[in-house]
Amino acid sequence: MVQSLADMDRDLQQAFRDLEEIVAEVVDLERAGAVLRWDQETYMPTGGSESRAQVLGTLARLAHARFVSDAVGELLAKLKPALEELDPESYEASLIRVTAREYEKLRKLPARLVEEQARVASVAQVVWAEAREKQDFGLFQPHLERLFALAREIADHLGYPNERYDALLDLYEPGMRTAEVEHLFTALKERLLPLVGAIGEASRAGKGAVDDTFLRQPYDEAGQWELTLRALRAMGYDFSRGRQDKSAHPFTIHFSPDDVRITTRIIPDDPLSALFSSIHEGGHALYEQGIPRALSRTHLGEGASLGVHESQSRLWENVVGRSREFWQFFLPVAREVFPAQLAGVTVEQIYRAVNRVKPSFIRTEADEVTYNLHIFLRFELERAVLNGQLEVGELPAAWDDKMESYLGIRPPDLARGVLQDIHWSMGSIGYFPTYTLGNVLSVQFYRQAVQEEPEIPQAIARGELMMLKEWLRRRIHVHGAKFEPQELVRKVTGRPLDPQPYLEYIEGKYSDLYGLKMG
Amino acid sequence: MVQSLADMDRDLQQAFRDLEEIVAEVVDLERAGAVLRWDQETYMPTGGSESRAQVLGTLARLAHARFVSDAVGELLAKLKPALEELDPESYEASLIRVTAREYEKLRKLPARLVEEQARVASVAQVVWAEAREKQDFGLFQPHLERLFALAREIADHLGYPNERYDALLDLYEPGMRTAEVEHLFTALKERLLPLVGAIGEASRAGKGAVDDTFLRQPYDEAGQWELTLRALRAMGYDFSRGRQDKSAHPFTIHFSPDDVRITTRIIPDDPLSALFSSIHEGGHALYEQGIPRALSRTHLGEGASLGVHESQSRLWENVVGRSREFWQFFLPVAREVFPAQLAGVTVEQIYRAVNRVKPSFIRTEADEVTYNLHIFLRFELERAVLNGQLEVGELPAAWDDKMESYLGIRPPDLARGVLQDIHWSMGSIGYFPTYTLGNVLSVQFYRQAVQEEPEIPQAIARGELMMLKEWLRRRIHVHGAKFEPQELVRKVTGRPLDPQPYLEYIEGKYSDLYGLKMG
Repeated sequence: MVQSLADMDRDLQQAFRDLEEIVAEVVDLERAGAVLRWDQETYMPTGGSESRAQVLGTLARLAHARFVSDAVGELLAKLKPALEELDPESYEASLIRVTAREYEKLRKLPARLVEEQARVASVAQVVWAEAREKQDFGLFQPHLERLFALAREIADHLGYPNERYDALLDLYEPGMRTAEVEHLFTALKERLLPLVGAIGEASRAGKGAVDDTFLRQPYDEAGQWELTLRALRAMGYDFSRGRQDKSAHPFTIHFSPDDVRITTRIIPDDPLSALFSSIHEGGHALYEQGIPRALSRTHLGEGASLGVHESQSRLWENVVGRSREFWQFFLPVAREVFPAQLAGVTVEQIYRAVNRVKPSFIRTEADEVTYNLHIFLRFELERAVLNGQLEVGELPAAWDDKMESYLGIRPPDLARGVLQDIHWSMGSIGYFPTYTLGNVLSVQFYRQAVQEEPEIPQAIARGELMMLKEWLRRRIHVHGAKFEPQELVRKVTGRPLDPQPYLEYIEGKYSDLYGLKMG
Repeated sequence: MVQSLADMDRDLQQAFRDLEEIVAEVVDLERAGAVLRWDQETYMPTGGSESRAQVLGTLARLAHARFVSDAVGELLAKLKPALEELDPESYEASLIRVTAREYEKLRKLPARLVEEQARVASVAQVVWAEAREKQDFGLFQPHLERLFALAREIADHLGYPNERYDALLDLYEPGMRTAEVEHLFTALKERLLPLVGAIGEASRAGKGAVDDTFLRQPYDEAGQWELTLRALRAMGYDFSRGRQDKSAHPFTIHFSPDDVRITTRIIPDDPLSALFSSIHEGGHALYEQGIPRALSRTHLGEGASLGVHESQSRLWENVVGRSREFWQFFLPVAREVFPAQLAGVTVEQIYRAVNRVKPSFIRTEADEVTYNLHIFLRFELERAVLNGQLEVGELPAAWDDKMESYLGIRPPDLARGVLQDIHWSMGSIGYFPTYTLGNVLSVQFYRQAVQEEPEIPQAIARGELMMLKEWLRRRIHVHGAKFEPQELVRKVTGRPLDPQPYLEYIEGKYSDLYGLKMG
């Protein structure tokens, strides 16, 4: 076993450098596309959308063509035998392994299809925003139909063990199967659905009630913005290597570890919306800012998977941001910015207010307990459409029916129903389950962090969020995408993905809040 | 003679479509680069600069490599004979001709050099901004030396009739020679230098004096911004196909005719700075917004040259924006925004104030009469460095000396001296003369417009700027880059580039303002 290619033959070394060069070119093209997408969501004038779609299509096609070229295939064939000798955790072995995995997957896709998908999605996003505003699903429907058709075509090219959904899911969560998602979701449903029911009953009986009228008053935009900045700075988000803007749908995007941007959305009467959005995106951003520069012009220079990514955002948003400790630190900060609105509010009061469980229409604003139900719904609907059991045109009604069955409420309009999320318009189909994976992992990781550094909760209460950030950096971020998600979870926690810690956390926290006696 | 390829043989038609496809890909890559440069100047966090430079380098290299590929050479060889038969003003003939001209020029440059120039310039821009802020030329010097070395290398690859400057100038102003610039500048100097002298004397004798203290007071940022928007809207700048942001150095950039953006810079005590910057960039932007969509994924879809581009910006900024007629319309508008500051100010007073001639340090804020002296200085200095008669390290002192000799003033610091302009840091060497060409052309074009539509000045006084905009669109913008600048000037005005109208305009206007008797 050798540590690095420096000990190996010159031919191999040259092949490795050639591979690095091609991969760097591909990553540069992908990053250029990322800047264009950021611009599209933040500042682009509406007139720009048609040309933007063309340029994004061209960039996607060129990146893809270069990556799946014969040159890469030949270099990988030359380099793969070296994997026998290299330390599998070394940069070199990881680059060869991950590049080979991506190459095998992506070369099955024709360049034409990649370009078309990028182009169609770029236009569809603009149409989605318009359709949402006009409450007109018909406007969006042909675009969504095209995107589902393309997703099917992509799945067919990629191949799959059981169903098309497997192929798409694997793009976001390498190694994960639809059946595993279904199994996990069933386990979660078994305990979350009764919990939601019990909380509802307790609420109706007046238990866990809290006066949160202080949240339902005007919080001016400048103050809300300031509050998000203070939270982000406390988390250690580096503004010299990132920035925050506004967009219709908050997101994080990275152009390198030194330029990782987030967006948020401000709602005048709801100060928690922007704050938790920013903390959530800040969690994603810390991950990207924490990935070593040395990995940055390769496909190792990003998160391990979308599920692992979401574990970081949900960890900060919920496990930290909705904890008593966080508000011990943050309530005085918030009171500096909004002295009138928060006068006399106690930590216990705001802790209860930010953890109020109430079935609601918008996923991104859902409480921790009902959040996953929104995901189950999306997973089941998109899987049904993909499998041909449901037509795109039937989605609005099917959405509303499922909302009623899971959450007992029916969306009053499309913006609070099927048109609320940007993701399908981006062609991200097979992606929603990663949100629930993220929830589950967030607790598994946090529990491990506290086990290794029991001081973390008290540090949070003192506003020293860096202790947690540094742990995450050291144990998770530093690896980038060197390991597949399951490997990483095992490496960090010593166990596979496990819903038990998450269920215990949720049941413990909310039994306490709502005075329930659990099983 | 046939009008279009549709009448020609199928092989040729296919070759033309193939050429269009490659050119579209090249233009898409160039546009992606443009979005990244816009972002770099407006919103990019400082940490992003290194990675941005790499990505811009990769995009430039790929665009170049694709454009100068053998495939393009073969297609052009097949298509060029068709030029004998096609109407030279047709889209097809223009595309073949302009693409062939660019191909012959650019294929002389190695891809490595193109990439390096883009990469070095991207970093140098960030260093320039820092050097300017810290007043430290030494910080910037090695980057500028590298850029001059690269410019020399580029010139040597391109080849030139007399001196290296010819090769660079031709990149910005196709067909123009350094000797012609020198000849034009000599003709201008002969009459502008005495005029500056005479105005100085008259000023000292109290002639042409005007009380402009109303301009030297606080004008709040929001109001200044509003004022720029009103001017831009009046000009017919389409905000659904563009936007305005702030940057250290105002500029215009286009990603398509449907996404043409400008920036401005606001100085609290000087309301004219932002206003005239915006009108100037608005003039550039109207040009790009006015180019037909059908040309937009080719190299015909841009201005004919930088000189012609500058004719549009200077026409709007000076010939219109500093005219009595414009202020008859715009003073009441400005008074709505700044009622306190502009109370009691008359049209004649503001007309005189905006046309005050006073030697000053900053080119972009110079009056019409001294402006060209700033250009002569830059042209002479960059030409001397390129020819090896001056070292980059000697530029700060040489700059100050020339300022003293042309304008009688010596910059008190580097930010008002050699570090004021962004252009050299962008690698734009051989580019400054296009500003004076633009001045000269602005009057030649405007005179032609008024000759054809004598109502234009009175329409401006009524705020109907569209009449002029439509004339410019119809006679200039619509052609994009189909014609070389000299051809275009002849086509529009019936004559070659001619400094006489410009000199007559300047002498007439300022003799009147300063009570001079001219030769």
